[in-house]
Parts: sequence; C-alpha cells; structure tokens
Amino acid sequence: VGLDPDVTRMPTHMQTPDQIELFLTAIIHATRPFAAAFKINTAFFEQYGILGMQALYAVRDAVGGAYCIIDAKRADIGNTSAAYARALFNTLSADAVTVVPYMGADSVEPFLELGFTYLLALTSNPGSADFQRKPILTPDGVSKPLHHHVMELALGWEGAQQLGFVVGATHAAELSELRGDFPAVPFLIPGIGAQGASAHETAAANSGGPALYNVSRNILYASAGKDFAEAAAQAASDIQTALST
Amino acid sequence: VGLDPDVTRMPTHMQTPDQIELFLTAIIHATRPFAAAFKINTAFFEQYGILGMQALYAVRDAVGGAYCIIDAKRADIGNTSAAYARALFNTLSADAVTVVPYMGADSVEPFLELGFTYLLALTSNPGSADFQRKPILTPDGVSKPLHHHVMELALGWEGAQQLGFVVGATHAAELSELRGDFPAVPFLIPGIGAQGASAHETAAANSGGPALYNVSRNILYASAGKDFAEAAAQAASDIQTALST
Repeated sequence: VGLDPDVTRMPTHMQTPDQIELFLTAIIHATRPFAAAFKINTAFFEQYGILGMQALYAVRDAVGGAYCIIDAKRADIGNTSAAYARALFNTLSADAVTVVPYMGADSVEPFLELGFTYLLALTSNPGSADFQRKPILTPDGVSKPLHHHVMELALGWEGAQQLGFVVGATHAAELSELRGDFPAVPFLIPGIGAQGASAHETAAANSGGPALYNVSRNILYASAGKDFAEAAAQAASDIQTALST
Repeated sequence: VGLDPDVTRMPTHMQTPDQIELFLTAIIHATRPFAAAFKINTAFFEQYGILGMQALYAVRDAVGGAYCIIDAKRADIGNTSAAYARALFNTLSADAVTVVPYMGADSVEPFLELGFTYLLALTSNPGSADFQRKPILTPDGVSKPLHHHVMELALGWEGAQQLGFVVGATHAAELSELRGDFPAVPFLIPGIGAQGASAHETAAANSGGPALYNVSRNILYASAGKDFAEAAAQAASDIQTALST
C-alpha cells in the first residue's frame, strides 16, 4: 500500500496537512491485513514543509513492524549518498528504499551497505521511453536497453545481495521478459490502478517471482467520505484477490 | 558556496545538529561577498531528522535574497515530481533545483514549470563512467554518450528555457567539449576542491560560458577553530580569484 498524501483528495472532512497523520494511520490499520508492505513516498510529505516532515515520521511510526519501504528515489556522489542512506535507514528506520542509478556504483553502494535497495530499472511512467529503453552499447559490443544494462551491471556491485529493481506494471511484456532474465531478483512493481495496469495481468507477467506490487491512489482515495478506511480495506482486499488469481 | 553540514567536521566547539543553523549562518554572512550563489544539499540536513529539517528551513532563510540552489536531485513520475517541485520551489523558496533525468520528460517538466532546473548530465563522481558516458544509439542511428543525449533531448522539452545542466569539474576535457556544443546553456559545475578539480583549470575549460561553480568542503571546513568563518571567507575569496584569473 503506497502512502502518498494529497490533502485535496483526502476525505472531505479532513483536507488539511495536520490531518495527514490521522488519515494515514487509519489507512494503515485498515489495510494491514491485506498488505505485504507499506511504501511511503517522501515527495507528498515534503510538499507540506516541516508539518509534512513531522507527519512523515509519525506515519513511519504508525507502520510499526510491517515492512516499510521509503520511496525517496535518492542518489548523489558517495559522501552525499551516505548521508541520504543514514537519513532513510537510520533516522527514518526504512526496511528498504528506492534509489536512482544514473550516477553509478559509488552513488548506490552507500545504500546497499545499510539496507535493502530497489534501484530504478524500467519505471512505470511515459518518460521511461526517453532514456531507459534506449539501446546502449555495452563494453562487450552488444546493444541492449539502458535499463537492462543497469540491472546487469548493478548486480555486480558491492552489496548486491541487498539489491532489487523497480519495474513498472505498465510494461507487462518487458516485466515478463525481465522476470525471465532475472528469475530470483526481487522487484518492486508500481503502476497498478491509477497508472493503468491491471493487478491480475501484472501478477501473470511476473510469473510468481519475488515481488511487491504497489497501489497508492486506488486504495487511499477509494472514498472521500467518512467510510474512507473501510473503502480502502475493501480496495486492498480486492487487489490482493486480483493479484493471487 | 555549497552548504553541506557534517557535524563531525564542524568547528570543535559546535559539533551537534542544533548548531548547524548557527554554523551555516556564520558561513553565509562571511562568504556572501565572494559567492554568486549558495547551494543547499538536502541530504546533509535530512540525516539529522526533524532537527535537521528545521535547520534546513532556517538556513534557507539565512541565505535570504542571495541566489539559492536546492541540490536535492529529485525526480519521479509526473504527479510525484509535481509534489517535489512544490516542496522545493514553493515551500522552500528555491531559485533553482537539481533534478535527475533517468525517468524522462514527464519526470522533469513539473520542475521546469515552477523554476530553474539543473538537470544532471555528466556528474563529478567516479560512477559517472557507469552509465552517463556509455554510448547510446539515438533514434537517428548515431551513437553518442548518454549524458550528451540527455542534454540534446531535454533542451527540446516543454519549459527548456528554464533548463541548465550539472557538468562535473572533474572532467575538464568533456566540460570544454560540452561548452563548445552548448555555448549559451547554464552549467552548474561541482567538483572543485575536495573532489580534486582545480578552480583555475575548470574556469578555463568552461571558456567563460554561463556557469556557477560549486565548492563545499574546502570552504565550510577551512578551519575547525573559532576562526572558521574568517577561514571560510578567505577560502572563498581565494577560489573566486582562482576562477577569474
């Protein structure tokens, strides 16, 4: 369950930033029986300033012992990535984080040192075509899509036993191929629901490989009424069923 | 002047997170006469939790009317990038931000809509060789380094009049070539000092093109004594001289 607070879409009786903690705590409790993990997206908290950051820490506490991914898509030069890794794994107690590969090995390894890292490979958005799908000439003279080269190279980096990849559900054919090429590597699969992919088809494309599927908006905003938590639980339950049948 | 607080390197009489604001405010006032801009690196604040985020906002205030770059290296799918852009440009009043190109046009355009954006092209770290320098086959059948393709493609995106690029000072030959290829595009050039590049050679490679040069550690930590602010001013002044001669 992806936790992306947007006050304009929160229940009509609680559309202010100081209600985010209450809103998401209710969502977490209601959906916990149907969720393998919670994914906190930092952008949606940062947009509300210090109040949003306080909500971020409170929501992390509310996730408690459930598996908690902090979706922050960070990476920088080595000493800066080390500071981000401390922020996410130590200060914010993430179980896993999302990281961007563009800056290469020394920008990613500080995360692998501290915890599980989902590296962006083929993302769910239209812009994934701009660079991630472009053919790159690898040193052995073979041409392959950039995202595929990212996966192969990163699996050779220090700490790669803590490495998984983000592969968008919106690319079912490529998800299926990548699962075939990397059968045992954990995938984080966003893009089901608001972004257009179906849960059932995505699970089929993943062929039972190790994966977490993320759904945010279709669960969080299933109802804008006082029944929002029950509606979220029902949506999560429906998605769980669709993923497993 | 890059503002990257690391309490273990701050003056020996003020090595705690609650001293960051005081430390950086003194640095800002002392170096302002020699600085075209200040660059705040979010990682170094986030690592200290809520206390660090409060310092981030206070330091942003201390920068005041000077040009303020928030070096956050964000980007995500469109609606999430829009939230990051609001966080950085609206909530934190950035004049410019740094953004990662890996996720393509729809992940970058929300930043261009709100303010000036330095997109990562060829970064200063060793990992820049892993993907940024690899040859990519463009749709017109030509092979060129990924970072060069990023620059060409991004300059065609919506809002590109608000676009500049990060080009590392540690790659003087490529900086010189890129300046030749893109003579009027603003560059943000990190890598001088602790990362190994010389100010004088970097300015020569840039050939007077529109650019901001970043130096962080060599200024911030010029002295760990009570004279830290004067030492920072002297370091900033020396770098300004080296850049202009």
